[in-house]
Amino acid sequence: MKTRITELFGIDLPILCGGMVWMSTAPLVAAVGNAGGLGLLCGGIYTAETLAAEIDRTRALTDKPFGVNVPLLWPPAAELMDVIIEKNVKVVFTSAGSPKKFTPMLKDAGIKVGHVVPNAFLAAKCQGAGVDVIIAEGSEGGGHVAFDEVSTMVLTPAVCDAVDIPVIAAGGIGTGRQIAAAFALGAEAVQIGTRFIATNECEGHTNFKQKILDAKETGTVVTGKKFSPVRNIRNTLSETVLQMEGEGKSANEIMNYIGMGRTETASVKGDVDNGNVQAGQISGMIDDIVPVQALVERLIQETKECIERLGGLFKS
Amino acid sequence: MKTRITELFGIDLPILCGGMVWMSTAPLVAAVGNAGGLGLLCGGIYTAETLAAEIDRTRALTDKPFGVNVPLLWPPAAELMDVIIEKNVKVVFTSAGSPKKFTPMLKDAGIKVGHVVPNAFLAAKCQGAGVDVIIAEGSEGGGHVAFDEVSTMVLTPAVCDAVDIPVIAAGGIGTGRQIAAAFALGAEAVQIGTRFIATNECEGHTNFKQKILDAKETGTVVTGKKFSPVRNIRNTLSETVLQMEGEGKSANEIMNYIGMGRTETASVKGDVDNGNVQAGQISGMIDDIVPVQALVERLIQETKECIERLGGLFKS
Repeated sequence: MKTRITELFGIDLPILCGGMVWMSTAPLVAAVGNAGGLGLLCGGIYTAETLAAEIDRTRALTDKPFGVNVPLLWPPAAELMDVIIEKNVKVVFTSAGSPKKFTPMLKDAGIKVGHVVPNAFLAAKCQGAGVDVIIAEGSEGGGHVAFDEVSTMVLTPAVCDAVDIPVIAAGGIGTGRQIAAAFALGAEAVQIGTRFIATNECEGHTNFKQKILDAKETGTVVTGKKFSPVRNIRNTLSETVLQMEGEGKSANEIMNYIGMGRTETASVKGDVDNGNVQAGQISGMIDDIVPVQALVERLIQETKECIERLGGLFKS
Repeated sequence: MKTRITELFGIDLPILCGGMVWMSTAPLVAAVGNAGGLGLLCGGIYTAETLAAEIDRTRALTDKPFGVNVPLLWPPAAELMDVIIEKNVKVVFTSAGSPKKFTPMLKDAGIKVGHVVPNAFLAAKCQGAGVDVIIAEGSEGGGHVAFDEVSTMVLTPAVCDAVDIPVIAAGGIGTGRQIAAAFALGAEAVQIGTRFIATNECEGHTNFKQKILDAKETGTVVTGKKFSPVRNIRNTLSETVLQMEGEGKSANEIMNYIGMGRTETASVKGDVDNGNVQAGQISGMIDDIVPVQALVERLIQETKECIERLGGLFKS
């Protein structure tokens, strides 16, 4: 499965594991690389020092390429970029900010740059800013989602039509049928999140993984629509926030109620009632916890079978 | 392109035009049938008498099969079923109610029955109730959407896994890439709505069609989340409703503000500021008004090219 993305990143398979807070740590990122894809560390939980250590930990587990996702709103973003360049990381995805800020510097250092977008207008802006790839993230995805709420089915081809550079589809992808669909829509790789949490290598808490296994496809909800929309699995926290939103409570009141550290509460401490269980709608289709290598092999096999089935459609 | 759906309905192409209020009237429904697909009249605007007349008007324009979509919440639903049986219509899709109520009666009359669902749980219930096909409608679609808000990317395969009967994908479909994606996800036909509004044959108001052409993929919003969620193109009406919702106004206050007849205001009278412009996210990818025959040919050609492109992915 060669595409412009596999060429660009020097990887065997067009399957990426997105940078997920507390989840996309060295063991998962390295395992995805070792399986032929590309994993990304999640910059948004690190200082320059702890990111450097996590990069080293990843390198100890793989000699394959990997990347770092840096949300530009994260205060130490600039320091993280210095570490990334110093440590010779090959790929950086930026999000939640302007791609103009760091793209030239990163590209000068020989790093491939992608930017995450929720609509076609921003995709065109990113291309203008010189990024190498666009990550088009549909609203069914887990974690931070855009105010726009455009789904992968529409977003992927709309973004592909708006740019010439290759596009990576994200949001709602966890089986080979969805990978084949993403390619049909014009993507040249997929970025998968939630499905990779339900793996042996992911360091997230067992309770969090169990919450994904238990969820139905209707089991997630977007909270924080007034300030920072996040898709997460329904629980005590999300129901309370939804109720406050329905009552017209202000963004400040809701943010004060939520407080800090709710993702860590769920992901690290395992309190999946009071923590923020960030996961996508694909949770409803995830029924097992498997090693990354087995998962990636399954995904490729399913994709192949799906594309063969499609080929038969016009033959009869 | 033979599938279980084309066999079941006796049609050439697995492309359906959904029943859209004020839009899916005789000329559009007949044109879709004449082009090889299947159109559905929208029962939700008719009495028994006016539906009988619309069926006759459709028959005058085509000898191909067509269907009627009946929202079960519509007060004259039972009378419409009598007319449908009497007039020997071949296909009925029901929605917004229990499929148990009319399915046995319709099937006894030799009618093929489908039910529209927003999640896999209800799909399995529908299969148990004896329907012939499931229409899985993703949240990116226009008009009435479910509280669940599951996107086509996740909903289609989740529903396919839950039932053995064939599945029609709906929501976010308006190009061949999306048709190929829907088939990759497991669907055996697609139901298209918004894209068919932007055709010569659709009797909707020109201003409504123009609103679709002007919209970006981010241009729709779901209003009425507290009582009856509807996806529509942003305008004066939707912005006002969104503001009321954000302020925590009650369902009753909002419904009183909206009042009656807002879809007619937009679709028939052409006031697309104060009317409810029901349309899906796919609006952002619609740039022309064309005859139905030309549109269907284009969709099939695009689907074919897309599937051929996918076939090349594993060859290199």
